[in-house]
Amino acid sequence: MGKLKVSISMSLDGYVAGPEQSEQNPLGIGGEQLHEWVVPLRAFRESHGDEGGEVNASTPIAEGILANKGAVIMGRNMFGGGPGPWGDDPWQGWWGDDPPFHNPVFVLTHHPREPLELHGGTTFYFVTDGIESALEQARAAAGDRDVSVGGGASAAQQYLAAGLLDELVVSLVPVLLGSGARLFDNLGDDRPRLQQVETIGAPGVTHIRYARV
Amino acid sequence: MGKLKVSISMSLDGYVAGPEQSEQNPLGIGGEQLHEWVVPLRAFRESHGDEGGEVNASTPIAEGILANKGAVIMGRNMFGGGPGPWGDDPWQGWWGDDPPFHNPVFVLTHHPREPLELHGGTTFYFVTDGIESALEQARAAAGDRDVSVGGGASAAQQYLAAGLLDELVVSLVPVLLGSGARLFDNLGDDRPRLQQVETIGAPGVTHIRYARV
Repeated sequence: MGKLKVSISMSLDGYVAGPEQSEQNPLGIGGEQLHEWVVPLRAFRESHGDEGGEVNASTPIAEGILANKGAVIMGRNMFGGGPGPWGDDPWQGWWGDDPPFHNPVFVLTHHPREPLELHGGTTFYFVTDGIESALEQARAAAGDRDVSVGGGASAAQQYLAAGLLDELVVSLVPVLLGSGARLFDNLGDDRPRLQQVETIGAPGVTHIRYARV
Repeated sequence: MGKLKVSISMSLDGYVAGPEQSEQNPLGIGGEQLHEWVVPLRAFRESHGDEGGEVNASTPIAEGILANKGAVIMGRNMFGGGPGPWGDDPWQGWWGDDPPFHNPVFVLTHHPREPLELHGGTTFYFVTDGIESALEQARAAAGDRDVSVGGGASAAQQYLAAGLLDELVVSLVPVLLGSGARLFDNLGDDRPRLQQVETIGAPGVTHIRYARV
């Protein structure tokens, strides 16, 4: 069985998205700064069907997000389309006809919906019976490969709080967002114990890999 | 003129002290975990008059906290003795007769008090007219050397928010404290801009050095 992993960019003051997230501003005000380290990388551009790009000390992290990945879990907020029922002309995700996931994606939601099959191997499945059910379905889809929690903050928090995460990679960006969605909120009193496994200093970001103790 | 520096240990969830700080528990519940990386080091033990200890990848950080330091600024909460007037038998600090500072220490307080001269070159001066006055006095005492903001969270925040810090070293510890005093709170809307200068992975901690942009 593969691992359950989260790889997420976080501001120095602990936010994984800025304030006032919206359809126009999915990462909130200032939130796009969190991903400035990854967007220029060749590994990122390739996964989005683009050519060229940089290779630097962040490359193994960007490649690691993609390597050995068999399925993705994400929260409804990350999939987008606002809260509430899906409606007659439902939101298809932020990523167009050929999303960069290239495998099954399980979306945590309270609102049932038929699977959405797009190009490039990405099919979104909408899971309404909780994080453990989503994990079970994602593991079944992934086989020997890993399951990645794509985000956002709430989905990552829930798997962290439940003690289900095997690995957490925090990409710490030297920006102070001041408000927004914190990764390490709402963890309760029985907080998970982590050990530091690896540290990588790269241009404009520090990547730290943690494992569950 | 030297630099104004902060070197501070922070939990992965952003706290520089745990909840319920008290005379018995100056770093709050769980807060002592923040300093587990530094206490075994030879550089730390030497500064406290002890022999032996480890040398590892954290050593340059521990030595850097001490090197070229001409004066220290700290908040009243870090100096201790509770809030309010000093009284007839005033608190002498947490550190005994021979504190590990070995230079002038300027304590930010609302309550005037005569200087307190202890052994080993440490004299505490009590500054009641604000952070800029304390900085001016500390710079005068330090000469060409650096001024270090020793803590706690509030003192570090105030110098950060005022844009006066030249350098910030965050020692990020893989522990989740859940509550306590956050370093990056109360910074207002005009938050300082930082650039990452150096990353060091060491046993049980990641040190990241930031400079003001």
